[in-house]
Amino acid sequence: MIFELGEYRARLSRCRKVMAEKGIEVLIESDPCNMNYLTGYDSWSFQYAQAVIVTLEDEDPLWIGRGVDLAGVRLTTFLPESKVAAWPDHLVDNAVNHPMEFFAEQLSARGLGRKAIGIDRDCYFFTPRSRDVLQAGLPNARFADAGRLVSWLRLVKSDAEIKIMSEAARLTERIMAAFFEVVRPGLRECDAIAEIYKAQVAGTPEFGGGYCCVAPLMPVGEGTSTPHMTWSDRKFVKGEAAYLETAGVRHRYHVPMVRALHLGTPPQRLVDTSKAVIEGIERALEVARPGNTCEQVEAAWRKAISRYSIEKESRIGYSIGLGYPPDWGEHTASLRPRDRTVLQENMTLHMVCGIWNQDWGGVSLSEPFRITAGGAVLFAKVPRDLHVKT
Amino acid sequence: MIFELGEYRARLSRCRKVMAEKGIEVLIESDPCNMNYLTGYDSWSFQYAQAVIVTLEDEDPLWIGRGVDLAGVRLTTFLPESKVAAWPDHLVDNAVNHPMEFFAEQLSARGLGRKAIGIDRDCYFFTPRSRDVLQAGLPNARFADAGRLVSWLRLVKSDAEIKIMSEAARLTERIMAAFFEVVRPGLRECDAIAEIYKAQVAGTPEFGGGYCCVAPLMPVGEGTSTPHMTWSDRKFVKGEAAYLETAGVRHRYHVPMVRALHLGTPPQRLVDTSKAVIEGIERALEVARPGNTCEQVEAAWRKAISRYSIEKESRIGYSIGLGYPPDWGEHTASLRPRDRTVLQENMTLHMVCGIWNQDWGGVSLSEPFRITAGGAVLFAKVPRDLHVKT
Repeated sequence: MIFELGEYRARLSRCRKVMAEKGIEVLIESDPCNMNYLTGYDSWSFQYAQAVIVTLEDEDPLWIGRGVDLAGVRLTTFLPESKVAAWPDHLVDNAVNHPMEFFAEQLSARGLGRKAIGIDRDCYFFTPRSRDVLQAGLPNARFADAGRLVSWLRLVKSDAEIKIMSEAARLTERIMAAFFEVVRPGLRECDAIAEIYKAQVAGTPEFGGGYCCVAPLMPVGEGTSTPHMTWSDRKFVKGEAAYLETAGVRHRYHVPMVRALHLGTPPQRLVDTSKAVIEGIERALEVARPGNTCEQVEAAWRKAISRYSIEKESRIGYSIGLGYPPDWGEHTASLRPRDRTVLQENMTLHMVCGIWNQDWGGVSLSEPFRITAGGAVLFAKVPRDLHVKT
Repeated sequence: MIFELGEYRARLSRCRKVMAEKGIEVLIESDPCNMNYLTGYDSWSFQYAQAVIVTLEDEDPLWIGRGVDLAGVRLTTFLPESKVAAWPDHLVDNAVNHPMEFFAEQLSARGLGRKAIGIDRDCYFFTPRSRDVLQAGLPNARFADAGRLVSWLRLVKSDAEIKIMSEAARLTERIMAAFFEVVRPGLRECDAIAEIYKAQVAGTPEFGGGYCCVAPLMPVGEGTSTPHMTWSDRKFVKGEAAYLETAGVRHRYHVPMVRALHLGTPPQRLVDTSKAVIEGIERALEVARPGNTCEQVEAAWRKAISRYSIEKESRIGYSIGLGYPPDWGEHTASLRPRDRTVLQENMTLHMVCGIWNQDWGGVSLSEPFRITAGGAVLFAKVPRDLHVKT
């Protein structure tokens, strides 16, 4: 286990408190980040129905998943055998029967079939069919939308979590150093990515890195007009821009970053836009301190870039921490208008300022940081300027 | 685009044919593999609501997604601007409003608000909330479960797809060569993974590899009792086993493989179990030919290993092709009892034979292959034996 048992117990205690406030007696949590947060469970097993189930009465939650993953529960969690159950394998990819039939049987057998059951309707790995089958199997339960209850519990990090993220940031620095170092005209994009992966997982002599929950995103040339392209095996050419978005990862905690480079003398509009973005980031970071709100941070950015006649519709950041596919965002607080989440010490965010969808491409730069009493403190030290390789 | 326009048109035509048979007038498809299959769309954007929408009347489907991803549609698909629409960014991670409100407005505006609408209830990236909001926004539509309609269309590959998978297999061979080469006592697991990633993406001098939709799975020592663990930064020690499960990837097509090694003289039970697994794979592959069923293939395996008093509950394989997170299985045909899918030429499968959850650990070996008139043909040539490093 990555944290002391007491830290997991405290998380579960906070979870039960919010459940009670919301009138939820049983919480079914299938988000792999949230399952990890509550129990330590860590396995690439979210492609089939699994959940951690928290009740108001019991100290230990229940894990239900696929049989082949049972040993993963033993190896990564503190759960006793009595709180672990596995559905039979013929339910994999079965058009007629579904693992949630087993979940319903287990909940009934454990006296939870008539409770108020909360589910997160936005969880990627709890499908509409999962809900249909579970509800059909528990006709006497009352179902409620739990919202992103556990995700919100993750917003403020413990000191132990901050320490792990600080280690992840050492990997982030190495990744960006590799990006700046290796990209050159004539190199294939895939060969650059090989070096980036190496920096990401080989890590430092003291510790290695885990897998990033998003493949390295590296828009190049005309691809810079959109943020979510990966790479090809074409060669870099002089006169084009590239940016890299990926994360250093330690014990599933992600510290993501975006940096941009240009091969050869950059066009003036790219230089100007980069300058505006950097100024916007600086102004926004100054406002990112305890007591201010997420929307105040974004407003400082917006004001700064408006002087350069740049507009940006999309948000400029979000809370970060644990990550499993498909993304490292916590899906809670966002840096954007109308988000009045009040910043507190030990919140951790990724401010990502991309200007995309321009006819000439775009530019993206970001900073992962944490909130301290004294203001925003960057996780990683990587020069923020457009990196020009002439 | 990876394939000629005619290949996409033929796929869409087959899709409409099955829709008509099932009484579905409008199909909402959010599985990133299926979106790619129908249109070529390729972007790491499935973490927010997006779909390709196929109607019986229109030749071109409609793409709806997030605004920042619009340029990705232009760069990877053949869709005209009139068939592309993007929801505004304030709907990201919004607890009150949801992108499916925009989907409902678009469908209504395009005259589709009173149709029979099919959705795949098992799709990871179409959440229960997505369905709730879409249904609320289209009160006059009739909703039906489309099952895995498009996934089933992918079962038999075209010759162009087989060619790409054969290229991916060259990467699979390089990955496994790296695994056998680098793992040794004293090396950190993360350093081995760095070399594996390098082989995966740097590829051959002729072409590179894409990202694998699953992180490399490398159970080591006691971790070999379960298949879905990744890696740590501890060092390999003499006397332990490791196996690697990952894939060569080309244009999102995956050719996965599992191989096992042991550092030092292996214990007899590992040798014996590996021998039984290999014999089981050989017997099963002999039966994998056109006209036979999936369950007949599994029965040949089961008969072979029963002579060694080994039992295995979980299935021994599944159909493969395109892959996006969280896995590379097509979620259609499975090699297991009661799956009577009849094998045809150009079906492509991953036979994966893991014996897990043993008190001493386990072993796993696999073969990706395609069905030809003459029987099963392996995609990759990698020695199947337990690789012993003394």
